Amino acid sequence: MFREKIKVLDCTIRDGGLINNHDFDLRFVRAVYKALSEAGVDYMEVGYKNSKRLFSSKEYGKWKFCDDQDINKVIEGINSNTKISVMVDVDRVDIDDILPRKESPVAMVRVAAYVKDIDKAIYLANHFADKGYETAVNIMAISRALDNELTEALQQLDKECKADVINIVDSNGALYQETTEFLVKKAKSIIKNKEIGMHAHNNQQLAFSNTIEAIIHNANFVDCTVYGLGRGAGNCPLELILGFLKNPKFDIRPVLDLISKEFIPLREKIEWGYIIPYAITGILDEHPRAAIALRNSDKKEDYREFYESLVAETEE
Amino acid sequence: MFREKIKVLDCTIRDGGLINNHDFDLRFVRAVYKALSEAGVDYMEVGYKNSKRLFSSKEYGKWKFCDDQDINKVIEGINSNTKISVMVDVDRVDIDDILPRKESPVAMVRVAAYVKDIDKAIYLANHFADKGYETAVNIMAISRALDNELTEALQQLDKECKADVINIVDSNGALYQETTEFLVKKAKSIIKNKEIGMHAHNNQQLAFSNTIEAIIHNANFVDCTVYGLGRGAGNCPLELILGFLKNPKFDIRPVLDLISKEFIPLREKIEWGYIIPYAITGILDEHPRAAIALRNSDKKEDYREFYESLVAETEE
Repeated sequence: MFREKIKVLDCTIRDGGLINNHDFDLRFVRAVYKALSEAGVDYMEVGYKNSKRLFSSKEYGKWKFCDDQDINKVIEGINSNTKISVMVDVDRVDIDDILPRKESPVAMVRVAAYVKDIDKAIYLANHFADKGYETAVNIMAISRALDNELTEALQQLDKECKADVINIVDSNGALYQETTEFLVKKAKSIIKNKEIGMHAHNNQQLAFSNTIEAIIHNANFVDCTVYGLGRGAGNCPLELILGFLKNPKFDIRPVLDLISKEFIPLREKIEWGYIIPYAITGILDEHPRAAIALRNSDKKEDYREFYESLVAETEE
Repeated sequence: MFREKIKVLDCTIRDGGLINNHDFDLRFVRAVYKALSEAGVDYMEVGYKNSKRLFSSKEYGKWKFCDDQDINKVIEGINSNTKISVMVDVDRVDIDDILPRKESPVAMVRVAAYVKDIDKAIYLANHFADKGYETAVNIMAISRALDNELTEALQQLDKECKADVINIVDSNGALYQETTEFLVKKAKSIIKNKEIGMHAHNNQQLAFSNTIEAIIHNANFVDCTVYGLGRGAGNCPLELILGFLKNPKFDIRPVLDLISKEFIPLREKIEWGYIIPYAITGILDEHPRAAIALRNSDKKEDYREFYESLVAETEE
């Protein structure tokens, strides 16, 4: 028996864009959209709505900005029920860049924020909800949130926010299933009229199992990426989720094809997945930025020295 | 707070030997033993005790047979509290090859068997226990066991078997955490005076989380391999378990060093890890043999065709 409410959001192009400055070419993005559409995936997140006043379109690819005309080029001519999602970061979006829902190919706007920025996130989510979009708030780095502050943020989201979904984001890839259970139950106990979702990172090979754990405890939104593509260790692999979920609307085969044809060759060009420095930052509940720097240095395989450098940074 | 009873068994050389016909050279095996000893790992399983009447020592490396003199060459001169384990398969061992415990460097003998062979496994485990060894029975392919037959096997193990540990083996990499919980609880409810252990395969990136799940439900023996080395998708990575367990006797750093120096180069020569055909056999709860054959063919990346071929093999 399946739970029809469970929705799958693929954020391959959005999270994968963090590796290559959001510079996937149109042919590739269309191939992903076509496969997701055939596979029955509910949403495809194509990138960020970042302000062009803050970031140069010479330095970054299209999916840092997600102009509606670029999204239209992705979807045109492809038969699909897959809705388009974009992400906005607090303090990096020009809200007027986002047209009313009726004038845009976008269906969902997700606001990413740390607990400390939850008031800004609520303001943005409500603004986009008022423009007619489905909306979500993604609570980043939740493994580092203090419990009392998280409680207050969740209470505010419950009372003040129009978002349809609140996502738990394990930015550091640090959660084990017991903590995932704790956080999902906590969110469910405070937030009454919205869905809870899970966005997991794969530093410790736990993205898929933490996503299952969230589903077991009644999260109904799950974030995945094709072949786990994503910055650093990457994300929960879509193909594994489609193998796990029982809803007959899902079909794993177009995704298998997509991996064969597009992601195996891509793997030769960019790096993601189970790589020891990312496992170490996950174990230590640190942001992956030190590991990203290591992988771009000539000491990329010096794991012990890297570990020592992180545990030596103790403060009183 | 840690649970002192939890013992870690590294089976890198034994399970990894299934990829290269058990032909690791002495220098490599000593490097693994030294690192495991420094890391505080409780057991190292070096290979199988197979009969030389059944298998040719020209075709297979030393660790298919594990002669005591070869094991002595591994351990000599290395300061260690890590005990040596060997595995025997039902119907493939000459029991007289195994000397009394006092005359051997081996501390533990583990018997691997399917549920249908549990009587043979009990006979062998009792024989080795009588020779003075710590013993275990590994119940293979447990995801395919019928519940009534598994119940009977566990009851027999409880009543008739002298083994210290009964291991749940997810040969197909098919278990999700709910089923792991079910199986560990079932084993604990029937088996009163032995430890329960977990041997997980990583087809769906669930080996580590299933091992944690088993620990949560009071399994006290866990099997791991360095960098997840093992046939097909490989096993639960030792470095992740050492990052997870809280017992201060464990030190992850020698294992990080070992991966840098030995396993990154080895990865260029032999294949294991998250590879889609192994994920597919895991999702479908099939033995990985079809995936192994595919990876040795010129269709190694034709995932969709492989999937279709497996789901087409339906029987009434």
